[in-house]
Amino acid sequence: MKTLVVCSGGLDSVTLAHLVQKNHELGGLVSFDYGQRHQKEIGYAEATAERLGCSFDLIDLRNVGALLSGSALTSDLDVPDGHYEAESMKLTVVPNRNAIMLSVAFGIASARDHDAVAIAVHGGDHFIYPDCRPEFIEAFQRMQTAALGEFGSVTLYAPFVEMSKAEIVSVGSRIGVPFAETWSCYKGLANHCGRCGTCVERQEAFSDANVIDPTQYDDPSFWRGLV
Amino acid sequence: MKTLVVCSGGLDSVTLAHLVQKNHELGGLVSFDYGQRHQKEIGYAEATAERLGCSFDLIDLRNVGALLSGSALTSDLDVPDGHYEAESMKLTVVPNRNAIMLSVAFGIASARDHDAVAIAVHGGDHFIYPDCRPEFIEAFQRMQTAALGEFGSVTLYAPFVEMSKAEIVSVGSRIGVPFAETWSCYKGLANHCGRCGTCVERQEAFSDANVIDPTQYDDPSFWRGLV
Repeated sequence: MKTLVVCSGGLDSVTLAHLVQKNHELGGLVSFDYGQRHQKEIGYAEATAERLGCSFDLIDLRNVGALLSGSALTSDLDVPDGHYEAESMKLTVVPNRNAIMLSVAFGIASARDHDAVAIAVHGGDHFIYPDCRPEFIEAFQRMQTAALGEFGSVTLYAPFVEMSKAEIVSVGSRIGVPFAETWSCYKGLANHCGRCGTCVERQEAFSDANVIDPTQYDDPSFWRGLV
Repeated sequence: MKTLVVCSGGLDSVTLAHLVQKNHELGGLVSFDYGQRHQKEIGYAEATAERLGCSFDLIDLRNVGALLSGSALTSDLDVPDGHYEAESMKLTVVPNRNAIMLSVAFGIASARDHDAVAIAVHGGDHFIYPDCRPEFIEAFQRMQTAALGEFGSVTLYAPFVEMSKAEIVSVGSRIGVPFAETWSCYKGLANHCGRCGTCVERQEAFSDANVIDPTQYDDPSFWRGLV
């Protein structure tokens, strides 16, 4: 199953790239620049492609991102600290992001005669991001089957859709993912901040999985106060 | 129903923009540059927005288009003359184009609190383009309902999906669409060539609808030899 992996450079999608290389055939990685402030992660995606010896394509969607303003990830709004609570996570919603990225990835996969597109959506994101839920994954696959018709069949592979982030850390640990070579923090500073929603989630995931977290955090103890 | 119209500057989508302004509320027009050779049409889309007094956004997807190579619309392959037969039309397929354009348009519509996205897919394209068929339109709507979830509801409006191009000409004629201000030809020269698949289809549509065709063709009689 020759598979194109949508890879942000984050922990989940880098683990997915390694998993695809182990169990399937890695066709390449594709990243998206929609003007997010955590652009640092794109460098980690490219480094992952080099490490795994596959192609890397960066899709410039900054002009699309500019029209989808209102998200703290693409605008001047402050990225909220603390847990991914409903109110603070809503600030990080980029409207229709996964549908846009997957549609482009399916076009590329179809042009390259790949068999599948893989995306690292996971259970921890269900409660706030509708486009990370199993219903979306199933509906997207049905839409693509109709869209490509007789021009080819491309499967949407989302093996983490029912997993927690801690389970992804367990999977990654088992297959030797170099977690220090992944980026999560929404703030995009020199180190992970340790305080934003995604840093808190990352630290909890390593803790819950009983896996040593190799990440450098500016504030490595903040999250413990939230438990 | 405040509606964002996907408008290429062609006959079908310009007619759609006029129809939406007449029957609903026109939120704006959005065009896509995926490196197609008939870029002239984009100027006609922008002129339509000016004429109808709405916003116009051009989305630059040229780097996506470059990765979807193999289509005569974006590459150096010759655009075939004559009827839209299966073999020649396949050369004009840009993989997943409608899914990509609609996903972006739904993101913009959602960010702007619009009620709908309109697209001018029509029955004449069913036999070769899977992403112009009713099954695709229905599956895309279901996918978007899942993707946007509780963040909003945007309807996909495709009023021409069961119409022929001649019927679109009839509708446009009734509501006063200035057809000379629309562009179809895939070759993108000074005038419509009159010979490519879309020029042949355009001339047949006016003829079948018994509407005078105001278009300047370099070869205005070629198509009659094909009937």
